[in-house]
Amino acid sequence: MSAAKRRRVAVVGATGVAGQQFLVSLKNHPWFEVKRLAASERSAGKKFSDAIKDASSGATRWFCDEPCPKEFLSITVEHAEKLILDDIDIVFTAIESDAAKIVEPIYAARVPVVSTASAFRYEKDVPVFLPGVNIDHAALVAVQRKNRGWKGFVTPGPNCTTVGLVFSLKPLYERFGIGSVIMTSMQAVSGAGRSPGVLSFDILDNIVPYIPKEEEKVQTETQKILGKIDNGTILSAPFNVSCTCTRVNVIDGHTESVFVGLQNKASLQDVKNAWRDGYAEFLSLGLPSAPPELVHYTEEPFRPQPRLDRNMNDGMTTVIGRLREDNVLPNGIKYVLLSHNTKMGAAKGAVLTGEYLIKTGIIE
Amino acid sequence: MSAAKRRRVAVVGATGVAGQQFLVSLKNHPWFEVKRLAASERSAGKKFSDAIKDASSGATRWFCDEPCPKEFLSITVEHAEKLILDDIDIVFTAIESDAAKIVEPIYAARVPVVSTASAFRYEKDVPVFLPGVNIDHAALVAVQRKNRGWKGFVTPGPNCTTVGLVFSLKPLYERFGIGSVIMTSMQAVSGAGRSPGVLSFDILDNIVPYIPKEEEKVQTETQKILGKIDNGTILSAPFNVSCTCTRVNVIDGHTESVFVGLQNKASLQDVKNAWRDGYAEFLSLGLPSAPPELVHYTEEPFRPQPRLDRNMNDGMTTVIGRLREDNVLPNGIKYVLLSHNTKMGAAKGAVLTGEYLIKTGIIE
Amino acid sequence: MSAAKRRRVAVVGATGVAGQQFLVSLKNHPWFEVKRLAASERSAGKKFSDAIKDASSGATRWFCDEPCPKEFLSITVEHAEKLILDDIDIVFTAIESDAAKIVEPIYAARVPVVSTASAFRYEKDVPVFLPGVNIDHAALVAVQRKNRGWKGFVTPGPNCTTVGLVFSLKPLYERFGIGSVIMTSMQAVSGAGRSPGVLSFDILDNIVPYIPKEEEKVQTETQKILGKIDNGTILSAPFNVSCTCTRVNVIDGHTESVFVGLQNKASLQDVKNAWRDGYAEFLSLGLPSAPPELVHYTEEPFRPQPRLDRNMNDGMTTVIGRLREDNVLPNGIKYVLLSHNTKMGAAKGAVLTGEYLIKTGIIE
Amino acid sequence: MSAAKRRRVAVVGATGVAGQQFLVSLKNHPWFEVKRLAASERSAGKKFSDAIKDASSGATRWFCDEPCPKEFLSITVEHAEKLILDDIDIVFTAIESDAAKIVEPIYAARVPVVSTASAFRYEKDVPVFLPGVNIDHAALVAVQRKNRGWKGFVTPGPNCTTVGLVFSLKPLYERFGIGSVIMTSMQAVSGAGRSPGVLSFDILDNIVPYIPKEEEKVQTETQKILGKIDNGTILSAPFNVSCTCTRVNVIDGHTESVFVGLQNKASLQDVKNAWRDGYAEFLSLGLPSAPPELVHYTEEPFRPQPRLDRNMNDGMTTVIGRLREDNVLPNGIKYVLLSHNTKMGAAKGAVLTGEYLIKTGIIE
Repeated sequence: MSAAKRRRVAVVGATGVAGQQFLVSLKNHPWFEVKRLAASERSAGKKFSDAIKDASSGATRWFCDEPCPKEFLSITVEHAEKLILDDIDIVFTAIESDAAKIVEPIYAARVPVVSTASAFRYEKDVPVFLPGVNIDHAALVAVQRKNRGWKGFVTPGPNCTTVGLVFSLKPLYERFGIGSVIMTSMQAVSGAGRSPGVLSFDILDNIVPYIPKEEEKVQTETQKILGKIDNGTILSAPFNVSCTCTRVNVIDGHTESVFVGLQNKASLQDVKNAWRDGYAEFLSLGLPSAPPELVHYTEEPFRPQPRLDRNMNDGMTTVIGRLREDNVLPNGIKYVLLSHNTKMGAAKGAVLTGEYLIKTGIIE
Repeated sequence: MSAAKRRRVAVVGATGVAGQQFLVSLKNHPWFEVKRLAASERSAGKKFSDAIKDASSGATRWFCDEPCPKEFLSITVEHAEKLILDDIDIVFTAIESDAAKIVEPIYAARVPVVSTASAFRYEKDVPVFLPGVNIDHAALVAVQRKNRGWKGFVTPGPNCTTVGLVFSLKPLYERFGIGSVIMTSMQAVSGAGRSPGVLSFDILDNIVPYIPKEEEKVQTETQKILGKIDNGTILSAPFNVSCTCTRVNVIDGHTESVFVGLQNKASLQDVKNAWRDGYAEFLSLGLPSAPPELVHYTEEPFRPQPRLDRNMNDGMTTVIGRLREDNVLPNGIKYVLLSHNTKMGAAKGAVLTGEYLIKTGIIE
Repeated sequence: MSAAKRRRVAVVGATGVAGQQFLVSLKNHPWFEVKRLAASERSAGKKFSDAIKDASSGATRWFCDEPCPKEFLSITVEHAEKLILDDIDIVFTAIESDAAKIVEPIYAARVPVVSTASAFRYEKDVPVFLPGVNIDHAALVAVQRKNRGWKGFVTPGPNCTTVGLVFSLKPLYERFGIGSVIMTSMQAVSGAGRSPGVLSFDILDNIVPYIPKEEEKVQTETQKILGKIDNGTILSAPFNVSCTCTRVNVIDGHTESVFVGLQNKASLQDVKNAWRDGYAEFLSLGLPSAPPELVHYTEEPFRPQPRLDRNMNDGMTTVIGRLREDNVLPNGIKYVLLSHNTKMGAAKGAVLTGEYLIKTGIIE
Repeated sequence: MSAAKRRRVAVVGATGVAGQQFLVSLKNHPWFEVKRLAASERSAGKKFSDAIKDASSGATRWFCDEPCPKEFLSITVEHAEKLILDDIDIVFTAIESDAAKIVEPIYAARVPVVSTASAFRYEKDVPVFLPGVNIDHAALVAVQRKNRGWKGFVTPGPNCTTVGLVFSLKPLYERFGIGSVIMTSMQAVSGAGRSPGVLSFDILDNIVPYIPKEEEKVQTETQKILGKIDNGTILSAPFNVSCTCTRVNVIDGHTESVFVGLQNKASLQDVKNAWRDGYAEFLSLGLPSAPPELVHYTEEPFRPQPRLDRNMNDGMTTVIGRLREDNVLPNGIKYVLLSHNTKMGAAKGAVLTGEYLIKTGIIE
């Protein structure tokens, strides 16, 4: 099956923030056609326009900056557990992990599932794709199908904080090797979603220096995504990652202060060149949702800043700045990166992954 | 001269933010009596109450949470360059570095000068005291007097970002030795003062990942303050410090994410014990501005938070939390600390230093 | 029964934000002794210290700036619906309106109930007391007891937005009469509590110009509180109040822009005098929680500001500024006021009301 | 001269925030060609790309969300006082009022000047145009030319807070008449520009309830812009406007809570219809910078909100919501409006005015 054919898509969790971002990302998409929307039982049977209407106040619960694409408003929302898949080629899911554990296997039994949930992220036979980074992990798809007896498969995207970090590390790992990584994140409130989300009362004039489970996720996922396929399994990348993850009063865009020890000495210019050239092959694929650059290095001394840089290339580019030598880690460098947590870090990144899997033939 | 005697004090830069914080810190002080206030030529000759009145709007330019102590309102402000010192025992200065270069030598020629300015911070014969940390650096006072032919001396306090870091490191350095330090700061806007300060337009929904010269200051000062006196000079502490300093939208309180490699293995409990016991001798001095603890470790998982913890013990205690093992640095630990940048990190810290120098006889 | 006797008090809803504020307000109270704490079934049977501990993260859910008074930590929390009243003289309640409808009548059947809930606020036989404003409404207590067959009674406090407005209006109404009031509020996020509260995502870099039911509450309550007792009922004050209520990104402190048409012409100085003198009689009672002033007029041109003024007299004083003539309303004046929504506007205001009712003999 | 001819334009104050917004608004403009840029002496003689480079840090001082149009980077900035006008048809100025008083007369002696400065706003022979509102005020141009002996003329735009208010009032004034207006504004920090601008320290977790001179400006300008031309002068609109103007912690977008007394009774639907239809004639002109609607009424109960609505039609549409009856003013209505203060409220609004003056032949 070629990229020219339009795949029929279902979006599960369509009424939530991430689900709505899927809809925006899939509007007028050349390769995907949204055929079905699903959500929890509460929304099932309602038109999408009614499902996002708050009954008591009459307010529309639409959370994206872009308006809701009109073509989706009249689709009847289905119950996620009873979603009809007969005319569906791919499912995009944007639901809580507990719900994903229940419904994603049902879908994956029949079709590929590209997910933003963490439910299956740490399973041995489940690849966590990042575009341009680890397409070789597709070898796990056959393993997963065999293990689980599925016709489809499930592939969750990484945690939003992992995304920018791995994009910045991959070209360095490839060219110079990596000995260790120390990272402190300053994460946006949109990363916590809406239920419960982050109360203004808790974060205004404040920082919350702990996000449960986040540091473990980033550490584990970075090693997994940069790991090598060996005999049907992933060998985690052999360097340690140590993180402190904090929440700051920023709407969108995760900022990360990164210190990297390289295995081989590299000049700052070498590092910049690696970022400049590291994704040339992926970018040459010309995928519909791919930005002109996956990482962009800026020489502006006070950048990247979340409010000014998060929307570069519609939030699909990780912006890096402040590259300097570090004198603590061996062959150390340090830099600051910014990654849009709800664009490349969530739904639109998942759509790009979907395109990538089609282009490479992993989704037929 | 004993602590019992009240010293006569001049506050220079009294109309600015840090100067006003000196006034609040010196209100009803048992050891210090404010005799003179000085500021730039523009304020000279005015009553203090008039000097802080904005002529065009009639607004009072008073920036502390605490009201202005009434006893200072009627003092006539003198021109800093012409300050009369005949009846002054100590000068506290809170002025820009350029101005400090001019007037601090004039004062120091006659009396001790405890300063918040960085003008002399990096001079070889100038001690940078932090209470409870490096009173042995007082040996430089004689060197400085001899070098410069002064009767008094000048001692600037550290940069506000250095303060919390060194308070957290000192007990570890003493007990376990330190191999290296990596730190990312998230600094409050009050650290930038009022001219120009940080515009809301630049920091709202944002982070600025660069503060000019800040990282070099923290790195250099940490090594200097923890350095050893040897033959009339300071040997910088022999471990590297690597920082990234950022500005966040918090009013007061610098948060720092710290990774430390220890020279000797220590359990997390050992580290907590070091913090608990590390300042016992200093605290036993019972100085008027000293808090019950210089560092406080909290087991609360989401703390320290700037809005909730910065005012512990009136901003004189560095609050530490989230102690964990780090697997990157040798014998690594990581933690988050919070230090009030305009209390212990500025004027009130300088007053405490003044008390300390009196108690130890360095100021007679 | 005299003020000298210490009343035994139960606090219902003790684990929530407002309930915790009651505990802070009642710490070491000369007239009240906290004997019992109650909350929902989930907390019942636990020690208070355990009831405010988050099981999964181990975090302490304590929301006040002041630490939790130690004496309450070991009290066993009771189920609000089964609260034992045998040794209780007064109940303070801080619960949602739906829960209040169920339990407040149970308590009021036996003892006086001073509430922050709106459940009974609009009932004809229920007085809504504001200290210094409408003690004559106590005539309704007998009516309520007779109507409902209760030995005690219930008296809810006003909505937090009503509080500052009525404090500013009362002296004007008394001296000059009021023809009409137009008010726009800019309300703090703490007014929305914690469930659901206001998400940072919704209010950062933003204003929400609608708070459901708030405008109706303010309009109705203002007329009721300033109404006259006539033949066992309240005649609403005969002037119209028209409001727009908005939410802004401020933690504590409701700001209100007020335009008032007076019935009789008054100079700006007359108005300031009215505020200065309007509560002299109430203040002369010397109640334990009463501030030195219920309203304070500031001549500072840029004040009142929530962050700088909300804590005046521990949040018990309404701060007014910017008094000017208005040329739209007849005998018009306009001003800006600031009232602490969770101090005088909630629990501590309710405690002051309790003191007031004791002092005036309404609670025996 | 027809609209088809491209006018040659100079932008004065090009290095400042408003000047940069002019450049963004004039990029690829079908009617205007930017030929010259001018600024203060400090920037004169430098390429624009160098003039906006901070010498000490190397940072680019560019303040718009949109990148700087490349075609302007190589233009050499001229000194505003020595700007060459030989090849210029129109000057757009974006400078402080004091500077405008000096240079605008120099320019206006030769060519039309469309300004964002207030310098000439209150002169009797100076029209303050708002697109679609008062093109009849063009009669003042001839008066101004005669009075001052100028070949060109100067026309400043209104204060940014006036803009949204007048757009909302104009259709009501025309259809129903207006008796009085009461308005409370909640203004964004970008309205204060960058020097000095609003410090984060002053506005975080805060409201500043006073903006010097703002209220007088709004009151005077509203009456002037809605005034009638009579015998070569403007008779101010005969209704009173009473304002309280406050600053809130929002980046862009002024929110206004408006209460209007109409002369003739109108239903809420009548009012909505007036807004819907009130600018049909102007919109039919099809000016390049004109939005599809000058005012937009939303039925969403929680809107308009600055972060969600300020960018409607690139900030050129005033968004109105929450229309209700008001029971204080005669035939009273109340509503909330939102207007983008640095788009329609500043440079892009001025460009639209320029287009309007060309289309109507006032600029030939």
